[in-house]
Amino acid sequence: MAKNEFDIIKHYFAQQQLHRDDVALAIGDDCALVDVPADHYVAVSTDSLVAGTHFLADADPALVAYKALASNLSDLAAMGATPAWVSLALTLPTIDEAWLAPFCHSFFELANQYNIQLIGGDTTKGPLSITLTVQGLVPRGQALTRSGAQVGDDVYVTGNLGDSAAGLTLILNQHHCDANLASVLVERHFKASPRISVGESLRGIASAALDISDGVVADVKHIVDRSKVAIEIDVEQLPLSAELLAFCGGDRQRAQQLALSSGEEYELCFTAPTAKRDALKAALAHTNVKYSCIGKVKAGSNLSLLQLGKPLTWQLSGWDHFVVTNN
Amino acid sequence: MAKNEFDIIKHYFAQQQLHRDDVALAIGDDCALVDVPADHYVAVSTDSLVAGTHFLADADPALVAYKALASNLSDLAAMGATPAWVSLALTLPTIDEAWLAPFCHSFFELANQYNIQLIGGDTTKGPLSITLTVQGLVPRGQALTRSGAQVGDDVYVTGNLGDSAAGLTLILNQHHCDANLASVLVERHFKASPRISVGESLRGIASAALDISDGVVADVKHIVDRSKVAIEIDVEQLPLSAELLAFCGGDRQRAQQLALSSGEEYELCFTAPTAKRDALKAALAHTNVKYSCIGKVKAGSNLSLLQLGKPLTWQLSGWDHFVVTNN
Repeated sequence: MAKNEFDIIKHYFAQQQLHRDDVALAIGDDCALVDVPADHYVAVSTDSLVAGTHFLADADPALVAYKALASNLSDLAAMGATPAWVSLALTLPTIDEAWLAPFCHSFFELANQYNIQLIGGDTTKGPLSITLTVQGLVPRGQALTRSGAQVGDDVYVTGNLGDSAAGLTLILNQHHCDANLASVLVERHFKASPRISVGESLRGIASAALDISDGVVADVKHIVDRSKVAIEIDVEQLPLSAELLAFCGGDRQRAQQLALSSGEEYELCFTAPTAKRDALKAALAHTNVKYSCIGKVKAGSNLSLLQLGKPLTWQLSGWDHFVVTNN
Repeated sequence: MAKNEFDIIKHYFAQQQLHRDDVALAIGDDCALVDVPADHYVAVSTDSLVAGTHFLADADPALVAYKALASNLSDLAAMGATPAWVSLALTLPTIDEAWLAPFCHSFFELANQYNIQLIGGDTTKGPLSITLTVQGLVPRGQALTRSGAQVGDDVYVTGNLGDSAAGLTLILNQHHCDANLASVLVERHFKASPRISVGESLRGIASAALDISDGVVADVKHIVDRSKVAIEIDVEQLPLSAELLAFCGGDRQRAQQLALSSGEEYELCFTAPTAKRDALKAALAHTNVKYSCIGKVKAGSNLSLLQLGKPLTWQLSGWDHFVVTNN
């Protein structure tokens, strides 16, 4: 890009107010330099959002920035990591200040909320896309991985499931409902909160965890595969919001379908030993985030869906088009 | 992307042979987990290469992979950092195995050479682009920054300058020359080596350093700005290869023009106190990389070009089209 275009971008990135003590050198040299406290691992995650694939080119830039950073923060939450630093690779077709201003405002607002500092990146000319690499800190030995689930553990999810998928159908004009209800569900699709404080609080308690970016069915399979266990989920235990049930006209089965396949929730799914139920309750009390037991870890290698303890009589397949992949 | 497409990509990424002991968790979870030794900073750099901006869409994928990783490694070299980990965000229009195979082969060949492990990333569908975030390790207090040059220091560059720019003019068919000579210069454009061992050896000796990605004139200005000093470069001291002089038909001034503005060299420019000349010689002896003193750090705030101690009588501006920016 031309030098004056760099100056414009520099102006917007300079809006960052946050300066962490562990950033020895930030933007402006060949590399950033960061300091890692003793006995901590660095958790690293990279995600790209590409216009035309993950969002429409004319999407609200503030929402694009939120989604890019929130989905990455959610990966840190899923590891039990505390956010620290982020690098932003931004490819833009043109320097459009009407796009950059709300993008940067939204980006830094969320970054400040989670105390994560922009330490570098690259700005290039080309088709619109955003790639973030976020880094967080987690005490050695306390990271939440996908591979630690043990037979006998309980399976939990945070929050409610399905609201994001319902919001997406409204955005895509596939469904219509009462305007107030629609507004709530669309907001939940666009502005789901990464569960950082939950992830931090689950250190030493959860045996496995991940975030629900592809829907609980698709994601729990990752725990099944990596932990080499079976998992049973009882659909009657899925946490459903009053708004989702209203959106489904009281059709509980339809709401359960949405809850099973809804992606981009940023809710965490985790397993924990039954013996740690009280410790879990105590640890999560301060987060004000609801959590629900939705199943059990068993011996085997499958994911099974049950309804009140019996095999499910209906198919999930008809709802595959709701599965939003993160790639 | 569809699940079977992920499997194809996974197959190519699984070719990685390198497993560092400090990677506690690699690809396959929400985040990678890495371990940082005590008293070390982590150096972090992100660069994007976008098809149509930084390379042609039909460029050799092996060369694209080399350029993407080498230019990032060069940023680590410029900090005096030892490469450790890399994240790869790859956006592809389609899953083309004829593209992926040479890309991955070249990527891992270079990664193995510098002992840097791929720890994660994202693969998405969209216009071809590559974003890498590399991370390296540098002992606390020994990083080479742009801001430490002191009045009286000598100014050095590694290797020869200008070969990359000459190679680029040949690639772009702007010039022609003897085929053997062309082959050497084109190779130097595509396959310049990041100066990792030089960067590591300059710890404790160099007062400032950066890599020459935009040409020595453009880049030395960064040291001028960040160190708040003046720098004088004598163009007669610029290291010119025999091939560059042959390419210029013996026109020394034309060779100097190319040397001043040639980007993507991956050579390092650094400053060091005159009192450390012997230490510098001893430190760099094992690297087998030549280095040349090209100027002095002075009081002031400008970059001046001299010829045998007198102001330059010719203009650099006519060669601006050779300046290759890294954005």
